[in-house]
Amino acid sequence: LAVQAVAASVARVGIGRRIRSLRAAKAFDAVDEITLDMAKGVAGTDLVIVATPIGRFEQMFAAMAGHLPPGCIVTDVGSTKQDVVRLAHRILPKHVHFVGSHPMAGSEKTGVEFARADLFANAPCVVTKTPQTHPKALATVRQFWSALGAKVITLSPSDHDDLVGNVSHLPHALAAVLVNAAPDGKALSLAGSGFRDTTRIASGDPAMWRDIFMTNRRSTIKALDGYVRELKEFRAALDQEDDQKVTAMLTKAKRRRDAWMAKRLAQQEESG
Amino acid sequence: LAVQAVAASVARVGIGRRIRSLRAAKAFDAVDEITLDMAKGVAGTDLVIVATPIGRFEQMFAAMAGHLPPGCIVTDVGSTKQDVVRLAHRILPKHVHFVGSHPMAGSEKTGVEFARADLFANAPCVVTKTPQTHPKALATVRQFWSALGAKVITLSPSDHDDLVGNVSHLPHALAAVLVNAAPDGKALSLAGSGFRDTTRIASGDPAMWRDIFMTNRRSTIKALDGYVRELKEFRAALDQEDDQKVTAMLTKAKRRRDAWMAKRLAQQEESG
Repeated sequence: LAVQAVAASVARVGIGRRIRSLRAAKAFDAVDEITLDMAKGVAGTDLVIVATPIGRFEQMFAAMAGHLPPGCIVTDVGSTKQDVVRLAHRILPKHVHFVGSHPMAGSEKTGVEFARADLFANAPCVVTKTPQTHPKALATVRQFWSALGAKVITLSPSDHDDLVGNVSHLPHALAAVLVNAAPDGKALSLAGSGFRDTTRIASGDPAMWRDIFMTNRRSTIKALDGYVRELKEFRAALDQEDDQKVTAMLTKAKRRRDAWMAKRLAQQEESG
Repeated sequence: LAVQAVAASVARVGIGRRIRSLRAAKAFDAVDEITLDMAKGVAGTDLVIVATPIGRFEQMFAAMAGHLPPGCIVTDVGSTKQDVVRLAHRILPKHVHFVGSHPMAGSEKTGVEFARADLFANAPCVVTKTPQTHPKALATVRQFWSALGAKVITLSPSDHDDLVGNVSHLPHALAAVLVNAAPDGKALSLAGSGFRDTTRIASGDPAMWRDIFMTNRRSTIKALDGYVRELKEFRAALDQEDDQKVTAMLTKAKRRRDAWMAKRLAQQEESG
């Protein structure tokens, strides 16, 4: 839907494993043509966007490798980048150009029925650059996401993984563990909108998030360890009845978040 | 506003320290009369609702103690209950009845301009019971919150503090620490709606939350310790590349949260 909104003349071919999902995508006007046949699907294409769960990237790259036309660009929408870029460089033929992408949009909902034409508007989108990245392919992929309204940022795969480990994968782990740690019975009936929002992302697809965590273990663990150190400081301040320290930590958090929210809103108003 | 919606004939007297806040409350029709004079404000009253930050409860109780008419009921809206109930029993005269309340409504916003007539609709409201609690006063306070649309639950002060320690104070601590632990620079520009929601409550009033944490240190620390144990299990599963364990934890979290959300929505539809 989002692609059509900016490029109505492009023929969008949906390639998939399940005809039902493809028919749904066509019914929602998310693609123009559909096929279960990879060879047919990628024939003559300029740009392939791999949007399967990361755990299936290896077989996807292998399935398309022999059919991609020379000079075609392959990108993806996977949430981690080091593993994905490594796989692409290993499996895809030299005559095609891979550029990793991570558009940071969407919700905890899965399925074409949640598609929106403005899905990527104002969303950050990381595009990866390595010493092997083809400059023109990088420019094309950047233009593609910009045209969809995303704010494009170029990063190395490892910088990407470290940064999202902190602001995306760590929060997901914290939310899931918070839900699991809540005692059974009355506690959850007292949980309110704070608990609801703090744990929203824990309703995300477990298989997708398993892939994210397993392909970004190192950065997630690093982020977790930094987090637990800071959490222990808060615990110590509570334990020592240090109300000045507790106040300082809460004030710092409020200031940082309010500043982040203000910047976020200003950017959205500016560009939307 | 909420009180007026269900009991238009009651005279609501706002007592405060700052005439500006009181005038704003009156302008918003949140109260009928206003006064800075505690003696005048509580004269002839049936029900006093203490809604200052918990850190000022001691001086509030002391200020009203000599002026409360016999048989009058005092309640509060403080977020922790053991300290509050202990203070009330120590300071208020024997001829008035204290019953602690904790209506779990509101947002991270502060001020009468965020008042809403349906603020308490479907919100859980804990009312505390101890061996000293007067049965008729307890019934009256329960009825008061029920009339405002809240789902009233009677608990001992310590049960209340343990439960909200888990589902309210722990999430707040986690959110504040998550904001503080996020690295400066690019990381926050990649943070999206997941980070926004996970950290929403960290924008709450630091002074109010300092009081909550300082009066519920024991339960919050207990909840934190249980949480960190569970978080370490998740870290270990990642470290050991145990994708089955990671999947199991994420699946459990999704199921628990989805079930909780479904129950919450069903209750809201039922009663609203």
